[in-house]
Amino acid sequence: MDGKHVVAGVYCAAATPLQANGDPDLALFADHCRHLIDQGCHGIALLGTTGEANSFSQNERRAILESALAAGIAPDRLMPGTGVAAIPETVALTRHALSLGVTKVVMLPPFYYNGVSDEGLYAAYSQIIEKTGDDRLKVILYHIPQVSGIPLSMPLVKRLAAAFPGTVVGIKDSAGDLANMQAIVKELPHFSVLAGADPLLLPLLQSGGAGCITATSNLVANSLRFIFDHVWDAERAAEIEAAQARINAYRTLSNAYVQIPTVKAMIALRTGEEAWFRTRAPLLPLNESERADLAAKFAALP
Amino acid sequence: MDGKHVVAGVYCAAATPLQANGDPDLALFADHCRHLIDQGCHGIALLGTTGEANSFSQNERRAILESALAAGIAPDRLMPGTGVAAIPETVALTRHALSLGVTKVVMLPPFYYNGVSDEGLYAAYSQIIEKTGDDRLKVILYHIPQVSGIPLSMPLVKRLAAAFPGTVVGIKDSAGDLANMQAIVKELPHFSVLAGADPLLLPLLQSGGAGCITATSNLVANSLRFIFDHVWDAERAAEIEAAQARINAYRTLSNAYVQIPTVKAMIALRTGEEAWFRTRAPLLPLNESERADLAAKFAALP
Repeated sequence: MDGKHVVAGVYCAAATPLQANGDPDLALFADHCRHLIDQGCHGIALLGTTGEANSFSQNERRAILESALAAGIAPDRLMPGTGVAAIPETVALTRHALSLGVTKVVMLPPFYYNGVSDEGLYAAYSQIIEKTGDDRLKVILYHIPQVSGIPLSMPLVKRLAAAFPGTVVGIKDSAGDLANMQAIVKELPHFSVLAGADPLLLPLLQSGGAGCITATSNLVANSLRFIFDHVWDAERAAEIEAAQARINAYRTLSNAYVQIPTVKAMIALRTGEEAWFRTRAPLLPLNESERADLAAKFAALP
Repeated sequence: MDGKHVVAGVYCAAATPLQANGDPDLALFADHCRHLIDQGCHGIALLGTTGEANSFSQNERRAILESALAAGIAPDRLMPGTGVAAIPETVALTRHALSLGVTKVVMLPPFYYNGVSDEGLYAAYSQIIEKTGDDRLKVILYHIPQVSGIPLSMPLVKRLAAAFPGTVVGIKDSAGDLANMQAIVKELPHFSVLAGADPLLLPLLQSGGAGCITATSNLVANSLRFIFDHVWDAERAAEIEAAQARINAYRTLSNAYVQIPTVKAMIALRTGEEAWFRTRAPLLPLNESERADLAAKFAALP
């Protein structure tokens, strides 16, 4: 994408709409994937935290990925989450993606136990890669300690990148600490450091980062793409600033209530589709008063 | 068991041995289950945190439960963990247990997201119970916030017990706070409060609790059973004290290194079976020097 990184660009941490019975709404999900590409996303990081991946069964996850392909999204634009608590299931999901020609995945470490050692996490990732056994595989490590409970330390990241060159190619850093992302870029200049938080896309790109995987890109992918495309264009500074202000306004509103249900509700407000208001337990949809409040504020966004 | 609680007694949070290739060693696991019953366990709470359940695939979990039944353990003495991150898979594992006549399960809440609301956890548990759709089901809630990230609050526990009488029948409290367990007993006298920590069995029983589900019972089930049987027998006070001292000595040693691999290593030292030294990543087995140190200290235990 940028000639320097294996994975670069604006990736959407796509949310997942649900039917009234709680099943994923695959037709609406396919529509959403096409919309995200139309809006300028380089790719779709489906089945992540925002996508409620870990609330879906293995079979549901497979069906969700297959629906994106059936919608005509090219395999190389899809980057599903495949990391679960049990290594055999992570391997199975990763091999399923590869069997469809989808070679890039975002991989959580096994996330049930916490306080585990770097040595244990290294063992987990290396076993997964070896058991998957496919040279096409490109792994984006997933650092989201505030949810997973598992920080991925700099020594671990460096060790995995060195042990699996061409396979462990990047990291999604959702901890929100720009300094950590910059430090990884400095240590591993060709490693794809992808920001998990929208306001960090611009400063991370300016520091040599590769792009972003964010929740707000469900709503403002075009503004994120504008920043990505024009980051080095001094004449566009005012437009970049305006794009960033728009992104930040959406992001701020998405944190008015619990973030994932709120992002989904904002997609519902854009599309008029009730399926986007729904969530899988333990996440709950916004209640009526939250919906009304959000709708009023959403209508006033830039 | 005690005439007051649906589930009462000494349950072992059974560990799971592994073959050299990492697969569960079902034959040794069956031996261990028979040994635990011989040692006085009322039942076996297999596939919990100590059992590394969440490091096994759904199919491996099924095979582990089936191996215990094939070993001749009565279904009503087995209490597998069935709670995983995705509700459809929790339902599938719970239904599998029921299909084998195993009606009691220990159920984690969906554990990927944290900071979720009591309302969201209530929705999760009630959906699981309703979708399982089997009146025989007896659920022990699993409160282990230091691992799962999800505390089960008193209002949530009371609400679930009231909404599903005869189904939500107890709680495994692994947070180690005796006052919390006593408070639940006081609020819900017929609810089975089971201590997750061995030193708390005696004071919890004295407070009206139902028993325990502990890791150290892999090693000293007979002493725990002695305490359970004689808790109200003043003439046995010295023997109870000795039993508790023995339990505490094993428990203290099991915390010399990371607990689960250490408990497994202690079973390995008892049985001479290398399979018990092994763990699933991200947990790692003890290294050589830890093994040597542990062996020396293990030999000196009462």
